Amino acid sequence: MAQKPTIPKGTRDFSPVEVSKRNYIFSTIKSQFQKFGFQPIETPSFENSDTLMGKYGEEGDRLIFKILNSGDFLKKVNDDAFAEKNSQAITPKISEKALRYDLTVPFARYVVQHQNEIEFPFKRYQIQPVWRADRPQKGRFREFYQCDADVVGSDSLWQEVEFVQLYDAVFTSLGLEGVTIKINNRKILSGFAEVIGESDKLIDFTVALDKLDKIGEEGVIKEMQAKGISAEAIKTITPIFTLTGDFSTKIEGLKAILNSSEEGKKGIEELEFIQRAIEAMPLKTAKLDLDVTLARGLNYYTGAIFEVAAPKNVKMGSIGGGGRYDDLTGIFGLKNISGVGISFGLDRIYLVLEELGLFPASAEANTQIIFINFGEKEALYAMKAVRELRNQNVAAEMYPDAAKMKKQMNHANKRNIPFVVLAGTKEMEEETFTLKNMVSGEQSTVTLEEMLKTIK
Amino acid sequence: MAQKPTIPKGTRDFSPVEVSKRNYIFSTIKSQFQKFGFQPIETPSFENSDTLMGKYGEEGDRLIFKILNSGDFLKKVNDDAFAEKNSQAITPKISEKALRYDLTVPFARYVVQHQNEIEFPFKRYQIQPVWRADRPQKGRFREFYQCDADVVGSDSLWQEVEFVQLYDAVFTSLGLEGVTIKINNRKILSGFAEVIGESDKLIDFTVALDKLDKIGEEGVIKEMQAKGISAEAIKTITPIFTLTGDFSTKIEGLKAILNSSEEGKKGIEELEFIQRAIEAMPLKTAKLDLDVTLARGLNYYTGAIFEVAAPKNVKMGSIGGGGRYDDLTGIFGLKNISGVGISFGLDRIYLVLEELGLFPASAEANTQIIFINFGEKEALYAMKAVRELRNQNVAAEMYPDAAKMKKQMNHANKRNIPFVVLAGTKEMEEETFTLKNMVSGEQSTVTLEEMLKTIK
Repeated sequence: MAQKPTIPKGTRDFSPVEVSKRNYIFSTIKSQFQKFGFQPIETPSFENSDTLMGKYGEEGDRLIFKILNSGDFLKKVNDDAFAEKNSQAITPKISEKALRYDLTVPFARYVVQHQNEIEFPFKRYQIQPVWRADRPQKGRFREFYQCDADVVGSDSLWQEVEFVQLYDAVFTSLGLEGVTIKINNRKILSGFAEVIGESDKLIDFTVALDKLDKIGEEGVIKEMQAKGISAEAIKTITPIFTLTGDFSTKIEGLKAILNSSEEGKKGIEELEFIQRAIEAMPLKTAKLDLDVTLARGLNYYTGAIFEVAAPKNVKMGSIGGGGRYDDLTGIFGLKNISGVGISFGLDRIYLVLEELGLFPASAEANTQIIFINFGEKEALYAMKAVRELRNQNVAAEMYPDAAKMKKQMNHANKRNIPFVVLAGTKEMEEETFTLKNMVSGEQSTVTLEEMLKTIK
Repeated sequence: MAQKPTIPKGTRDFSPVEVSKRNYIFSTIKSQFQKFGFQPIETPSFENSDTLMGKYGEEGDRLIFKILNSGDFLKKVNDDAFAEKNSQAITPKISEKALRYDLTVPFARYVVQHQNEIEFPFKRYQIQPVWRADRPQKGRFREFYQCDADVVGSDSLWQEVEFVQLYDAVFTSLGLEGVTIKINNRKILSGFAEVIGESDKLIDFTVALDKLDKIGEEGVIKEMQAKGISAEAIKTITPIFTLTGDFSTKIEGLKAILNSSEEGKKGIEELEFIQRAIEAMPLKTAKLDLDVTLARGLNYYTGAIFEVAAPKNVKMGSIGGGGRYDDLTGIFGLKNISGVGISFGLDRIYLVLEELGLFPASAEANTQIIFINFGEKEALYAMKAVRELRNQNVAAEMYPDAAKMKKQMNHANKRNIPFVVLAGTKEMEEETFTLKNMVSGEQSTVTLEEMLKTIK
């Protein structure tokens, strides 16, 4: 094989530095999840196809990776279907399993399947990869991690309060200050559609409204008109384009607009409950903001809708999102279980931390000290010290071969190992070590104990 | 859907307790890997099919899960191939990607692909799931984690010494004392075949010898005869069936048997080097033992062969294994890179720890304290305390709904949460909390500070 091997497009290898930094993010998030009482579950990478198919719309079905049946998979295909050479029709006959497309549907399946073992309300978190046969492009991959926390079995608004606090806790402990947690409520959006008399066009209406950021007021109005929403109706709700000010000011504005909608007023009440709680327990570094244009795949959410924006000095799409959905497990036959959850966008958070230089040095787990190898006798002397250092929780190594000094020093340099030890006959006789600080260049003769102190 | 959903056979859901215990094992292993200077990498779940196919033998090819191409995958299949309805012939035309079958081949691919970024010797560890379309049975799954540490780019025997120490360090820190690290060397096995004049039957010979444990001396002799190894030849090496005693005694026995084989003597030298080093740096709780029948897929290994047996009081197959392979990356065109590595059998280690009751209580990350919800005002009082506890690194929750007291206490009970807090009007006035220890039943009135002390 003359050519170097490659990996499938849209997938990635992660180098030691990248894995370490990713693990730093994961473990920071996990630690907060656990403090908030969320418990980890894991589900298989592939599910039965009928668990996944039909749950993400037509586009989703197309993007699900299907696994070919083992053995003589064509045997089961009847000749007629086969003769037609219809890929779509043959797929379910030659593939019974499919790779997880997200963590939400497998979670719903898990809850229904294990409902008798689960104590509700059930607060779970799940951090696992998902796969999508999307066209790869910058920042969009065919394999990527999702990182979700959800509660099922409680419709208490305290959950929403907790998720706002959880976002704040995670981003604060990542050192990423100044994120904006945007909140909205499906009932607000329904209220808008109601007051303008276009409840049947709720989806078209919110899809257009959701684009305010990108296409501006004029663009939104144009799109609404194209979808058959009357100019008069649109005029009624133009005040929502200019809702500004702080949370409370916007709420006052909303009250005026939604005065005639019971559902809209319910939405306002819910938002106010959350706002009051957060005011009484202020966030550490994040800001809670009301964004009445926020929709995020409206069909899914039935109450609160969340989205997190990176600090304003970073150009980046949302780094998290979520909301309440009232009938998640209904698709698998378990009715009336309300759920609410949020997710963290790992890849984007990584890019933001990188851009702002927020990864701590400790995120890059690296060997702290390496011993030069001068030959078998010296190597044993070195290995005994290495062993002791490891017992004291120091990541320590010896260069495995008695190679030329220069080669060994180069190795230490390239790997950014901060300390190098040289111990030859003289040191062995004195039971000491020559310790070199690779950053300062300083060199000193020390005992094992002194070495430990210097490194720690 | 009336029926409960299921998952594909051979796959597993992991509950919170199981995930926590598995993570305990992973993090213990990772922590030792890092102390020994190994660095983490991760590779994609699926590889290009030609990266994997042909690397695991015919049986392996069959057991690799193939991913169906997206879109109209039949379009590319020409009509002749299609008409034959030959599953095997059509597979490469409708599937370009396949799920990882192990971590070794992807690692070899990684090393070759990234050879210019890697500083050799390269010590990497990798903990990721792999997939095999094996017939599921007790203890054998279609999705399971592998946990590997390898070094490539050094043929120093210090690596072998380090891997013995690494096994010892991991099992000691898991509290699993008394494991046996069995070691052998491919050169010993080659030597045996050489001295009996059957070098061309090396594989048959060692496959039979490897079964000594299971089928006994007689069975091994019968199998060797069946494979055409002469009775005379077999007689020459019967002494290996009765090699007993400690490491050094066995080595002396080997020296007599392999006296005429240069390769055999080289194998003995290597074993002695490792033994000397381990004698100079004694293991903590494991025992190093020479097992001249150990082969473990001989074709793969070229030097040391390792296998770890659980303590004798537990019935369990090997819980780890590995060895040296001299040309791992050759399959991808990078020649003369020696490698040596070991792996840990997560599922079996889990079962052993479970059987011996070795999981520490802390392995089950659980909420430590839950506040009863008496209504909105009380809930806010509770949530403020919850917030402070979390800030102090305590996993704390409030029951989300103001449900009946009994229901809330039941919830705490079922979830094994050790502390419950009750705080109503009286406590709010006094700025105290009624803290109930769910194990002892003890109840006391405390301030927030006192509560923190009691829990910690």
